[in-house]
Amino acid sequence: MTMKSDKFKVDKRHLRTVRTREKLLVAARHVFLENDFQTTTISQIIKRAGVGYGTAYVHFEGKDELLIVLMEDVMDRFHQVAEQPFEPGTAEEAQKQIEQQAMAFLQLAEQEREMLRVVEQAIGISYVIRTKWKQIRERFIERISCDIRYAQRTGLARPDLNPALVARGWFFANEMYLFEVVREETTASIEEIAKTLTAVYTTGLYEHG
Amino acid sequence: MTMKSDKFKVDKRHLRTVRTREKLLVAARHVFLENDFQTTTISQIIKRAGVGYGTAYVHFEGKDELLIVLMEDVMDRFHQVAEQPFEPGTAEEAQKQIEQQAMAFLQLAEQEREMLRVVEQAIGISYVIRTKWKQIRERFIERISCDIRYAQRTGLARPDLNPALVARGWFFANEMYLFEVVREETTASIEEIAKTLTAVYTTGLYEHG
Repeated sequence: MTMKSDKFKVDKRHLRTVRTREKLLVAARHVFLENDFQTTTISQIIKRAGVGYGTAYVHFEGKDELLIVLMEDVMDRFHQVAEQPFEPGTAEEAQKQIEQQAMAFLQLAEQEREMLRVVEQAIGISYVIRTKWKQIRERFIERISCDIRYAQRTGLARPDLNPALVARGWFFANEMYLFEVVREETTASIEEIAKTLTAVYTTGLYEHG
Repeated sequence: MTMKSDKFKVDKRHLRTVRTREKLLVAARHVFLENDFQTTTISQIIKRAGVGYGTAYVHFEGKDELLIVLMEDVMDRFHQVAEQPFEPGTAEEAQKQIEQQAMAFLQLAEQEREMLRVVEQAIGISYVIRTKWKQIRERFIERISCDIRYAQRTGLARPDLNPALVARGWFFANEMYLFEVVREETTASIEEIAKTLTAVYTTGLYEHG
């Protein structure tokens, strides 16, 4: 009986903790989008969440930590695209899937434009966010490297190139276009960008032979 | 006689102006490299230059304007690499020259590492510097587009791709690697990076047909 009641207390406390965390994250999202990263203060977020200061600081040390969790949520959608199973049977199949992934990646950039604007600003000014962004990038590059190694093993891709270096170059081009889409600086359509990048990446620019 | 004396005065004043400007730029370079962009103040630069405050502000409104001139000096060396005459007779010649340019570009990044570190930090925090960097980037991309159009006209490059979009993607990959070199984050050699990037760009990753 005592044990049961203890367990109940623990569950309730746990639930309250989860809810407080959620309130802070929802509030942070609102305040970041209303202002921007630079002008947002942790006090504004705590006030909006309607949470006590002491309680809030148990969960998050500052606005950087809040943005990191929000970034992870957004980037999870991107990782889902990047981490689709990649087992093409032919070079044409590989190209088709890569183009479709590049397009989905840029479409997500459009959908998540507002949060990614905040993220881009934060990367510029916060060391913690910059470090987090690098980790996120490395996960993409590792997955692309893995796909390239598969294509090299199966004889679809040329075997003489370092997959990690190829993957970095490919991701860099996509990342830079992602932020152009976020800033609405692109004149071409997302479809044309994805098609063009993929064509150069998979088949090259020059006609040999 | 009066005219001659006036001219002499104007020349002397002009010379003094040029020297003051030069003193401020040399001092700015020192202070930026000693501290970094964020912590540097225009007062530190003016003091180091040994120039009067009033005089200094005639030349530069603030530290952003000083960094812009220093950036232009550094980037001129990069532009010289990018703007070499490009008139390859074969795809192989094109590949060779592009690889050599990519390597020279990354070697310059190594040589100019200290100033480019300041520039990268400044891009993150200053709107003026970010805008300047975008202008510099567009000049590179315009020149690459021009080279691609040449290769398309002469039948060396595939004609179905938008040269401006190809050029952006290519420059983006090089730019991101440039900042990795600046931050000393690369594990591969500059030679291997240039070779790998160029191989994918010119001949593609996949074996077709």
